[in-house]
Amino acid sequence: MENRSILLVSRPEGMPKPENFKLTTAAVPEIGTGEVLIRTIYLSVDPYMRGRMRGVKTYVDPFELGEVLTGGVIGKVIESNHEDFQPGDIVEGRLNWADHSVSDGANIRKIDPDLAPISTGIGVVGMPGLTAYFGLLDIGKPKKGETVVVSGAAGAVGSTVGQIAKIKGCHVVGIAGTEEKCAYLKDELAFDHVINYKTDDIRKKLKEYCPDGVDVYFDNVGGHISDEVLWRINYQARIVVCGQISAYNLQSADKGPRIQGQLIQKSALMKGFIVGDYMDQHNEGYEQLGKWVSEGSIKYRENIIEGLENAPDAFIGLFRGDNLGKQLVRVSEE
Amino acid sequence: MENRSILLVSRPEGMPKPENFKLTTAAVPEIGTGEVLIRTIYLSVDPYMRGRMRGVKTYVDPFELGEVLTGGVIGKVIESNHEDFQPGDIVEGRLNWADHSVSDGANIRKIDPDLAPISTGIGVVGMPGLTAYFGLLDIGKPKKGETVVVSGAAGAVGSTVGQIAKIKGCHVVGIAGTEEKCAYLKDELAFDHVINYKTDDIRKKLKEYCPDGVDVYFDNVGGHISDEVLWRINYQARIVVCGQISAYNLQSADKGPRIQGQLIQKSALMKGFIVGDYMDQHNEGYEQLGKWVSEGSIKYRENIIEGLENAPDAFIGLFRGDNLGKQLVRVSEE
Repeated sequence: MENRSILLVSRPEGMPKPENFKLTTAAVPEIGTGEVLIRTIYLSVDPYMRGRMRGVKTYVDPFELGEVLTGGVIGKVIESNHEDFQPGDIVEGRLNWADHSVSDGANIRKIDPDLAPISTGIGVVGMPGLTAYFGLLDIGKPKKGETVVVSGAAGAVGSTVGQIAKIKGCHVVGIAGTEEKCAYLKDELAFDHVINYKTDDIRKKLKEYCPDGVDVYFDNVGGHISDEVLWRINYQARIVVCGQISAYNLQSADKGPRIQGQLIQKSALMKGFIVGDYMDQHNEGYEQLGKWVSEGSIKYRENIIEGLENAPDAFIGLFRGDNLGKQLVRVSEE
Repeated sequence: MENRSILLVSRPEGMPKPENFKLTTAAVPEIGTGEVLIRTIYLSVDPYMRGRMRGVKTYVDPFELGEVLTGGVIGKVIESNHEDFQPGDIVEGRLNWADHSVSDGANIRKIDPDLAPISTGIGVVGMPGLTAYFGLLDIGKPKKGETVVVSGAAGAVGSTVGQIAKIKGCHVVGIAGTEEKCAYLKDELAFDHVINYKTDDIRKKLKEYCPDGVDVYFDNVGGHISDEVLWRINYQARIVVCGQISAYNLQSADKGPRIQGQLIQKSALMKGFIVGDYMDQHNEGYEQLGKWVSEGSIKYRENIIEGLENAPDAFIGLFRGDNLGKQLVRVSEE
């Protein structure tokens, strides 16, 4: 039985390109004592992985050249020498971009396939969902009636942020980059207003849609979109800095207006975070998100590309703005 | 009896100049029912006043052209139609840049001249002290053994911040702009290290003096000094944005490296504030600061310029970096 893997073979300069990646084939690995063999079903591609390709140590170690990429995976246990896992179990974990991965059990958790579609374990009830949940609720602390603006609103994180904000009784404005995304957010997810940053006058629309200013800004994007939002924040506003996708492919330092003066003027808070900061509260998040999803108060979309060999293109597509909802790659059948 | 006042007659462009101000003379005002007449003893000049001269509404109303400037004042009640105040009382409040002010009692508080020199009521146990106290403790939350960096370290706020951080058991590094200031901070206030931003290589010195990174950065200055500090912050660092004196006289928007990416990398918090945010806790702050000052665990310096007519120059001097410690103007004898 063959095991295909995707390696990072060169560091992207600017936008990642297909030639930065390479598909290789080897035998399926044998498992040792206490180990589990997992067949990959879904593989998650996420913007934060671009940072790991840079080769600089940040909050996660960089990807090494010539090694297999890793990311969020949903898979099925097909062999187990670990007492907690049985063949047939569905698991989620940070595993290889490959047909199969070996785990010692420490980096995987079991998913109950009866609760929700298993793919949601790397989506709305997985890392992206938790990111939305903890970033918005712990940092953004939205209060009923407040105005919440979210950029990258149609992505896996942004679409969940907006819906949680609606659950909390907020006035929600999303910023996205296609008419299809904007229509989805407004018509299906019940965002109050949506701004298409590619075609709308962002400043004018923000003024129109946020007449009482902005209390919480959940930022997935950065750059000039955020500049515009920041000038409309209210006293004691909270700015949740989750991602800066507009900057991930830049080749030189990104400059913009210094924001410290505005933070003083508004006694505003700006905080960066990653979902790992909330490791010890993840179960609470999984539970609440699962509940909201099963009740229908949080909806989600998945954009599924077929085939491990297409994972690099699915990843590159994130930066083209291809995905509406969570971008997944289906590697094998459930 | 004459009453001299200082008016703002034109809005400064860039660095404030003497011609932006004008001294006028009128009769001492008469007080009405419930009012108090106060003779100014000390007048405080503070960097934040530059913002009020801009003519744009921020957290405080702008100064209007042709009107008397207002600021922190220590004065003596010389006439009173208010039951809470008696002639001879020493009071502190936001009053006129003038020989005399009238108050209805709402914007003044009594100072006990037996506890500490009355001038400290607009200094180390006044607004600058409270600014240091709440900003550092409530936002910075320094823990024993952590590294705290403070810019504008020799000013009224910065010198108090560093000393409170020492009380909390932190490793304290100050940034200031003259050898005299640096020597004072290190020799008299027991800062662990001091960087002269005009003569030292800031990046190199930060690396040397903060070998374990920066946990709390108390920023009074902004600009390139802050850029350097921000690249050395630790995971979960807290950046207290108190002032941006380097930007107050700029005539166009100040650009710099976007910091959101760094905030994500470090899960760091950045928060702006003004002392008014803590209005309901001011008494706690006055009490604790008074205790530290009387114990000798917080020391202070005052830089006193004589004469109301010299208040504009004292103010302009803040931006030249003239003052070591709190900049005061003595308007009359105690």
